[in-house]
Amino acid sequence: MDFRIATRADVPAVLDLLADDEITRQRGFGTVPEQVDAATWAAFEAIDADDRNELIVAVHDQEIVGTCQLTFIPGLSRGGAERLLIEAVRIRADQRGRGLGGDLIRWTVERARERGCRIVQLTTDKRRTDAHRFYAKLGFTASHEGFKLAL
Amino acid sequence: MDFRIATRADVPAVLDLLADDEITRQRGFGTVPEQVDAATWAAFEAIDADDRNELIVAVHDQEIVGTCQLTFIPGLSRGGAERLLIEAVRIRADQRGRGLGGDLIRWTVERARERGCRIVQLTTDKRRTDAHRFYAKLGFTASHEGFKLAL
Repeated sequence: MDFRIATRADVPAVLDLLADDEITRQRGFGTVPEQVDAATWAAFEAIDADDRNELIVAVHDQEIVGTCQLTFIPGLSRGGAERLLIEAVRIRADQRGRGLGGDLIRWTVERARERGCRIVQLTTDKRRTDAHRFYAKLGFTASHEGFKLAL
Repeated sequence: MDFRIATRADVPAVLDLLADDEITRQRGFGTVPEQVDAATWAAFEAIDADDRNELIVAVHDQEIVGTCQLTFIPGLSRGGAERLLIEAVRIRADQRGRGLGGDLIRWTVERARERGCRIVQLTTDKRRTDAHRFYAKLGFTASHEGFKLAL
């Protein structure tokens, strides 16, 4: 298993992973269009050009089997250290239950530590009870309520 | 009441606001040092130079009475739209209960909408039950668990 920053060529596979999720579908993410649209390419370019955003892919046998997005956020608390926000974590359905997700999150936590972050945070839908156990096992504490407002 | 992006001169007042909070104190934020240290200045400079990070202050009678930090995060979901993450929301103790917090959050939501964000999100400590009611009243849904890992 290899973890690395996504390239432009990885974007369709990442979109497939994002769409392959029941809760995301309920939210209306919908099916992946045949062609990636201009706004999605622009978002990839924005992430790619930004030192504080990283789209990560997990690669196995030359296939993209997992992804997440990292955002490193500067702040005045905690002695000026950055915090890492993890978003959009996905493991391909046929690869779940093999420890790959744990490897991916541990890799991101190590990346945050090396960069000097003092905290790593994420939110996960309250219906994802498997995910809650997964993050607790990795040492995370469910100390916060996660509020969302769709615009 | 006026809301604007913080300048360097506002930093000591923002640090006072961040420290003036029981849960933050328990986390060991500690008292504000007499002089702002180099790492905290560097964090301010990083926020100030970053188009996707904004330190906001609420000003009343030429005094800083509230603050929050906004991070606009590009992503491949939601048609490539940004999401807004709100962090470090504080209202000065003597100004609470007057609707100022609501005004601040509504102003940030409007800012997100103008920028084309499709979602606004934040986490708040599970012990802050007043804050939970506050965000629910502003239209936010507590749909997620907020996980944190201190490094």
